[in-house]
Amino acid sequence: MNVAIVGTGQSKFSRDSGLQIRELAFEAYREAMKDVNLSKKDIDASIVCSAPEYDPQRSPSSGISEYLGLDPRPTFYAESICSSSTTGVRAGYGLIGSGLHDVLVIVGFQKMSELSSTEAQERMERGADIMWESPFGLTMPAGYAIHARAHMEEFGTTEEQMAKVKVKSGKYSKLNPDAVFQREVMVDEVLNSQVISSPLKFFDCCANADGASCMILAKEDKAKEITDTPVWVEGIGSATNVVSLSAREKLTGLKSAEKASQTAYEMAGISPEDVDVAEVHDCFTIAEIMAYEDLGFCEKGEGGKLIEEEQTYMGGKYPVNIDGGLLSKGHPVGATGGSQVNTIFKQLRGEGGRIQVEGAETGLVHNIGGIGTYANVIIFGR
Amino acid sequence: MNVAIVGTGQSKFSRDSGLQIRELAFEAYREAMKDVNLSKKDIDASIVCSAPEYDPQRSPSSGISEYLGLDPRPTFYAESICSSSTTGVRAGYGLIGSGLHDVLVIVGFQKMSELSSTEAQERMERGADIMWESPFGLTMPAGYAIHARAHMEEFGTTEEQMAKVKVKSGKYSKLNPDAVFQREVMVDEVLNSQVISSPLKFFDCCANADGASCMILAKEDKAKEITDTPVWVEGIGSATNVVSLSAREKLTGLKSAEKASQTAYEMAGISPEDVDVAEVHDCFTIAEIMAYEDLGFCEKGEGGKLIEEEQTYMGGKYPVNIDGGLLSKGHPVGATGGSQVNTIFKQLRGEGGRIQVEGAETGLVHNIGGIGTYANVIIFGR
Repeated sequence: MNVAIVGTGQSKFSRDSGLQIRELAFEAYREAMKDVNLSKKDIDASIVCSAPEYDPQRSPSSGISEYLGLDPRPTFYAESICSSSTTGVRAGYGLIGSGLHDVLVIVGFQKMSELSSTEAQERMERGADIMWESPFGLTMPAGYAIHARAHMEEFGTTEEQMAKVKVKSGKYSKLNPDAVFQREVMVDEVLNSQVISSPLKFFDCCANADGASCMILAKEDKAKEITDTPVWVEGIGSATNVVSLSAREKLTGLKSAEKASQTAYEMAGISPEDVDVAEVHDCFTIAEIMAYEDLGFCEKGEGGKLIEEEQTYMGGKYPVNIDGGLLSKGHPVGATGGSQVNTIFKQLRGEGGRIQVEGAETGLVHNIGGIGTYANVIIFGR
Repeated sequence: MNVAIVGTGQSKFSRDSGLQIRELAFEAYREAMKDVNLSKKDIDASIVCSAPEYDPQRSPSSGISEYLGLDPRPTFYAESICSSSTTGVRAGYGLIGSGLHDVLVIVGFQKMSELSSTEAQERMERGADIMWESPFGLTMPAGYAIHARAHMEEFGTTEEQMAKVKVKSGKYSKLNPDAVFQREVMVDEVLNSQVISSPLKFFDCCANADGASCMILAKEDKAKEITDTPVWVEGIGSATNVVSLSAREKLTGLKSAEKASQTAYEMAGISPEDVDVAEVHDCFTIAEIMAYEDLGFCEKGEGGKLIEEEQTYMGGKYPVNIDGGLLSKGHPVGATGGSQVNTIFKQLRGEGGRIQVEGAETGLVHNIGGIGTYANVIIFGR
């Protein structure tokens, strides 16, 4: 069974939207429905994705589905923290591929401004090991800082190389009107910004945001009726790592992402070099460098060199996060994966505008939950 | 693609287990794995289900999957409040039916004793309409009390008939060692118990509980290797209703359940009269009476008569909740659907012991989330 994405959309990402979650969701849904030959009554079901406990609404899937006018059709909530909306794609692929549904809507959302940053941080920490690690200070930045240190120690990766990930992000952010931050940042600016969790500084970290994303999935025959340019889901890989960092085999990469990408490549029948454009989960600059390696865009330990050589810029061997990535777009947790898919969808349809990678045929999304606890890698083809 | 349940298990349900959620999950998993020809390495993935915000662990799927020794295989969290674990079955059917996985484990859990009843009640209310209804007192009992009043008004259903649902539950609870309450209750006792939300009294309501359930799903060829007596998923129906009770077309039944059952019967190619044994979501006595009608076990308005005539006892036309149901077993929210499946699984394999319905070939599970907001109906065959 072939499953396609036939429409995508996202809301503007912002630090404080002033909108309710259902309004954010509607903004993304409206955009996804804009150019499709599809009426609401042909949608069979929805899946709603977010990280839990930010919004006072508990079990938000029914309310959002209702607001989009999709009741009484089934809906449920799928979650893997920051990778929730690509988990939605995996679950949606299943519902369509098994024949239960023909067309479904996946909404990812988060309203981070609902809480203070301290409260938001507390929620995030409870996604890590709540017995032995988060109570002792293992915040998200600290978890990635440990990975950064290990990577520097083992491979000689430098703070300048990490800074260059942010420089690339800033460069492309100016072309993305949906991004929270739209300005260029220089290496020195990154290096001199406030230390958050050494060696990670302010500009090495992405920011909490409000936002929503939406994807419409359809089975093959329906997809071809809905649009002339469906984008096919060709490979899905998903894996986990143990929650506790202290129990992991290594800290220089994410085993979950490595395994998920192997599964995805195998299912799609391609190799890393076949990827024309990729969106990776750059919640921190080091995360993008590790992603290069976990995805096989370079050898282990060569990620720093890859960005230094600008191989992940447009025109390089692997254009990565040319929409600005999380570092500039902001990270509305449950919406992030869908926003990545939105960018790849447009690329494969040649609708990338000023960031279009010429002739892009194969795109990849790498979406991580927690400190590498969950990983989804999805390969799309046109 | 045929998908089967090859093993099920549940922990003891109790008011205060003193266990961590992962320990509850393991208890259910161990039982599900007991009689299967399956080693852990043949399990491809897991889905973890609960109602959110009862346990301090956020995003519990990774920790539970890890505790069961299933990492680095993928896992995610699926939720539709009280119907979460049958939502897990729906998502799992998709992952297997689409060819992504061959064998997977679904765990449902809840540790309600983590919170005081007031706190638990506050969480539950936030699953309803948090703008216009729950802040004004629409608790779960109140929501079902409104349905009970409407049913009494429109069909002449009586408090005695509702009480008889609890009498049946008490009768069978004595045969279920996993139930929280194991004792018979008389009609007078129900009628004279404390009013919770008129006309619902103490014994008309199920109780919060701790517990976990586990189901192992497999695709056809694997299922036949794993067990000689797989139980097949023959129909799955799911639907929603608008969240606000004030916006519903009627309050004498659950539109979500009606629609879900129609879909499930159609997919299975059967009619209500083909059902040999059923588990329905009796969170309140009125809920079971409405379920009879929504599932087509009797005409609309005849539910009270059906229990009065003891047609839903063993030996009656439709044996319902002969494991005691939620009213006696207790309601560990995310575990409840899996516990219902566990009972039907054993019935269809002839392993029901003292509550075995002779020659049961077709079983049905009816699992509701919120005040009828979500409904899953699943039909199983042997």
